[in-house]
Amino acid sequence: MSEIEFEKELKAERTNIPGMLVFDLPVHGDSRGWFKENWQRAKQTDLGLPDLGPVQNNISFNAERGVTRGIHAEPWDKYISVATGSVFGAWVDLRPGKSFGEVYTCVIDPSKAIYVPRGVGNSFQALEDGTAYTYLVNAHWSAELKKTYTFVNLADPELGIEWPIPLSECELSEADKHHPMLKDAIPMAPRRT
Amino acid sequence: MSEIEFEKELKAERTNIPGMLVFDLPVHGDSRGWFKENWQRAKQTDLGLPDLGPVQNNISFNAERGVTRGIHAEPWDKYISVATGSVFGAWVDLRPGKSFGEVYTCVIDPSKAIYVPRGVGNSFQALEDGTAYTYLVNAHWSAELKKTYTFVNLADPELGIEWPIPLSECELSEADKHHPMLKDAIPMAPRRT
Ligand SMILES: Cc1cn([C@H]2C[C@H](O)[C@@H](COP(=O)(O)OP(=O)(O)O[C@H]3O[C@H](CO)[C@@H](O)[C@H](O)[C@H]3O)O2)c(=O)[nH]c1=O
Ligand SMILES: Cc1cn([C@H]2C[C@H](O)[C@@H](COP(=O)(O)OP(=O)(O)O[C@H]3O[C@H](CO)[C@@H](O)[C@H](O)[C@H]3O)O2)c(=O)[nH]c1=O
Repeated sequence: MSEIEFEKELKAERTNIPGMLVFDLPVHGDSRGWFKENWQRAKQTDLGLPDLGPVQNNISFNAERGVTRGIHAEPWDKYISVATGSVFGAWVDLRPGKSFGEVYTCVIDPSKAIYVPRGVGNSFQALEDGTAYTYLVNAHWSAELKKTYTFVNLADPELGIEWPIPLSECELSEADKHHPMLKDAIPMAPRRT
Repeated sequence: MSEIEFEKELKAERTNIPGMLVFDLPVHGDSRGWFKENWQRAKQTDLGLPDLGPVQNNISFNAERGVTRGIHAEPWDKYISVATGSVFGAWVDLRPGKSFGEVYTCVIDPSKAIYVPRGVGNSFQALEDGTAYTYLVNAHWSAELKKTYTFVNLADPELGIEWPIPLSECELSEADKHHPMLKDAIPMAPRRT
């Protein structure tokens, strides 16, 4: 397992994708392992995190280094982190407007968390065997809602994502192998009000 | 890693501790690993889970088999589960009243989750190296609130907890080695309304 940096200060940073935030999380190490406030509503809303109001906490377990999932833009906001292991994350703005197609990438280890607004495509590649990826969302998933997702292909050269492990060597779902290229993707419709 | 049972039906069960619930969670396995809705507000409130309104998600990483934490009753409700690995959990009712001192134990792997009401003492022992324990709470932690906790000693023979790994061989925090026995514990004051 890669080394986690302990006792960072809680911090929020903006990215080139409007509304997306990258957090440094303090992780407290001791002889037992470590402890973190993975999400703390009061401290993080003070730093600009929207008041999430989560209704679901999802966890995916990625058995082997190289497991890659995405790119999915879903009709809810996500607050993403890892419990164990680490991932290379890649996000693509799929909202209509002038930031459409904007890409951001970074490594997430347990001392990071990412706020991904609705309409931003989400994907990641596990960098370690046994990586547990955990996220909070503010709307309930259902299989029927899949038709409202916007998908983009992980391998689209236009995105220029430099996956640490070549996708040809990676475990992907059948669905994720066949998503359209960015030029054919339909921007996600704005939230109905 | 022990085998996880996939595709169980979502189910809630009561225990001998009033208000405490044990959930079976469906875990979906595939070639990438697995995916679970670790908490799903709508489906689980239908099964009797109080509407949590979480404001914090905490994760502790337990480096080695045998790490043991507890017994802590805190002034908030907890919804507990594991992302990787497994734990032996033990709970002690520390609310004033006729269930004071009631004990419940079970193993939590990724296909289980536990609702622990405010005033019920919480503890666990990691059964595997690299166990990630994750929970949601409905009030914000602060160091000052520690004086409102009720603590009980993990080793109190009156509790009769049969720890899978003898506590003398386990990694514990200094604080957790010195908590009072049940007979000296002060029941947790009811929530102020
Ligand atoms: C998203 C979701 C999925 N499922 C079920 C459907 C499938 O049986 C299984 C896996 O679903 P898939 O659609 O393959 O999920 P996956 O490709 O991993 O992608 C999801 O999970 C990823 C994390 O694993 C997220 O980064 C993606 O945004 C999300 O779309 O879990 C649920 O039961 N609830 C859910 O919320
Ligand atoms: C509970 C909590 C703790 N902390 C900090 C204080 C310490 O630097 C570090 C570890 O705290 P400790 O008081 O040793 O936590 P620990 O013995 O693991 O017990 C807590 O965490 C356990 C899970 O690890 C829970 O089962 C207990 O109910 C909870 O009290 O994390 C936070 O920053 N936020 C928190 O919410």
